[in-house]
Amino acid sequence: MREVAILGIGQTKIDEHWDRSLKDLAGEAVLVALKDAGLPGVEALFVGNMMSGPANNQQHLGASIADWVGLRYADAMHIEAACSSGSAAFRSALMAVASGEIDTAIAMGVEKMTDSPGEEITGYLATAADADWEVDMGLSFVALNALIMRRYMFEFGWKKDDFAPFSINAHANGAHNPFARFQEPISLADYQRAGSICEPINLMDASGIGDGAAAAVLVPLELAQQRGLPVIKVVGSGAATDTIAVHNRREPLWLKAAEISSKTAYAQAGVSPADIDIFEAHDAFSIMAALSLEGSGFAEKGQAPRLALDGEIRPTGRIPIATRGGLKARGHAVGATGMYQIVEVVQQLRGEATGTQVENARIGMAQNIGGSGSNIITHIFKRQ
Amino acid sequence: MREVAILGIGQTKIDEHWDRSLKDLAGEAVLVALKDAGLPGVEALFVGNMMSGPANNQQHLGASIADWVGLRYADAMHIEAACSSGSAAFRSALMAVASGEIDTAIAMGVEKMTDSPGEEITGYLATAADADWEVDMGLSFVALNALIMRRYMFEFGWKKDDFAPFSINAHANGAHNPFARFQEPISLADYQRAGSICEPINLMDASGIGDGAAAAVLVPLELAQQRGLPVIKVVGSGAATDTIAVHNRREPLWLKAAEISSKTAYAQAGVSPADIDIFEAHDAFSIMAALSLEGSGFAEKGQAPRLALDGEIRPTGRIPIATRGGLKARGHAVGATGMYQIVEVVQQLRGEATGTQVENARIGMAQNIGGSGSNIITHIFKRQ
Repeated sequence: MREVAILGIGQTKIDEHWDRSLKDLAGEAVLVALKDAGLPGVEALFVGNMMSGPANNQQHLGASIADWVGLRYADAMHIEAACSSGSAAFRSALMAVASGEIDTAIAMGVEKMTDSPGEEITGYLATAADADWEVDMGLSFVALNALIMRRYMFEFGWKKDDFAPFSINAHANGAHNPFARFQEPISLADYQRAGSICEPINLMDASGIGDGAAAAVLVPLELAQQRGLPVIKVVGSGAATDTIAVHNRREPLWLKAAEISSKTAYAQAGVSPADIDIFEAHDAFSIMAALSLEGSGFAEKGQAPRLALDGEIRPTGRIPIATRGGLKARGHAVGATGMYQIVEVVQQLRGEATGTQVENARIGMAQNIGGSGSNIITHIFKRQ
Repeated sequence: MREVAILGIGQTKIDEHWDRSLKDLAGEAVLVALKDAGLPGVEALFVGNMMSGPANNQQHLGASIADWVGLRYADAMHIEAACSSGSAAFRSALMAVASGEIDTAIAMGVEKMTDSPGEEITGYLATAADADWEVDMGLSFVALNALIMRRYMFEFGWKKDDFAPFSINAHANGAHNPFARFQEPISLADYQRAGSICEPINLMDASGIGDGAAAAVLVPLELAQQRGLPVIKVVGSGAATDTIAVHNRREPLWLKAAEISSKTAYAQAGVSPADIDIFEAHDAFSIMAALSLEGSGFAEKGQAPRLALDGEIRPTGRIPIATRGGLKARGHAVGATGMYQIVEVVQQLRGEATGTQVENARIGMAQNIGGSGSNIITHIFKRQ
């Protein structure tokens, strides 16, 4: 297997982009990433997206975006793994370059939900859950996460306010990120008076969805080393699924797929959780950030809120998460989220995370979750 | 790059499966392929599908199908490239195994359109075309192909009946395939009296869509060689896109993406068109079979109908196509079609194509087209 590095990154602000199309957002991310990489084009394009079929009347995003950005005749395909579509596209690009089949690739994620023809985004999002046994019973994603969070509070004795630090940290960091959807810090009082969405989840526990695109250019390591810039190497990639329905899991409070995918990535990278300097976790809901930290070995089962309460998830803490705002404040552009996480890890490892730079960050990890933990993809990156 | 072989294949009959779900069809193809391979499971699952989101209210097919077939915790993702989704999934699986990241993989395609909640299949299919500049102008896929066919007849002087042999050959071959949707031969008279869909395309020029699933097990070559069965090696894989809108192409009658992807595959395999013993072409419409033969180097530009009229596309001819019925008679299960083509090439190379076996078939090619030639993926296989 050939070693692979990231040569360029690009992203758009996450927002309700009423005046911009999916192609427009995708194009911006791709062109910024190409410029950052100093390349005129690439051989292959891997597009992560969850719901352009129903939301934009456009499938076939590989060909569509390749055409739009001028990558004429490129090899291109669209990869979908619900909210983990972005990192699934990255993993596909990684294997393509690692195999030697492709020399230069762009992995990207894009989602455009605002102004969709059907206006049923909650319904489209629910297609990531089990259609027969969850959605048909009336479960939306926030409802599924509310059930998990309530059980977690019951099992481990945490109170609602114990989850506040996840949201406060995310918003504090997002305030420094010009690409974040929400750029204002929040206080404990803000968290406490936030309206309930589906008890115990309130507005400050739930990430805000939004439109956006993020991209990275992948090349063989030798090519990146010739550039003379800080080289960001991909050192670990793991992916695992779990039952799509939460009720089928033996332990609904344990993300087995996070455990498996992170262990695979740690083994490939030759590191342990103690070596990770920053961790872009998938905080679609506060409870998911907690479960992700536990499944990946940063906290004991049921103990992640302790880490958060002790300030260890802040940029100055033991394991900084949501360093550019996370899904909560940077925003959750669904099929693009995994690529935002990777772009942000690269920013940290390059020392470009203005305002929330983690000192001496050398090894970073990104973990992207699809469905309620039914697909989890973990990548580890290292600055050479 | 590690060499890769196909160890097992599986498929369901293509039909209007009113009584079967997407998961049910997918499960059958996967379990048959695993049994054929003699493996209890695989590490990774790559699912090709075009429209399960709108048609089945279910995205996230990687996790969903892995869960259903008992591949608990497997790495799994869904790949979409419109009608070329099946071969895009195969190509992803190929790169995963070739890279060394994955040792055993299943590539599969599945589509279930009958009894969909929205009942707007023509609309879902149109999401493979350019939403802004084709579909919004009222163009469906049959309309796009009708425009291409009419121009082709005008440019090269062919008459409508000159396309009949494509359909007659497909139906003659499909009559021997128990998995084919249509298993009855047709005559020239049948072709001539077939109702028009969109002139000049009639019912016998257009493939019949249907529900189905097909799968193949990919492993490193050494593993396949230990089995003592005929080893089917993947020797070439090429993929290319073109403008998504047909009107943006300099030459709308030339499939540039077929030319590029087939040349890539020929170069990798070290063969030329003259070495190919069978060719599973993407005959979604008769005109596409013709353009595919030309773009891949089997006929001069504008001359493919000559090949067909001379009987050279039959199992006994120079370049047999649609040997198990093709999209026309075996049926076009959209996101599964690319995998049906690959499964059929393997059947031919193994000598298992009862009734339409091409004598001494040693090298076979499959070419899958997404959109109106906007994504074309070509694979070449060789019996060792």
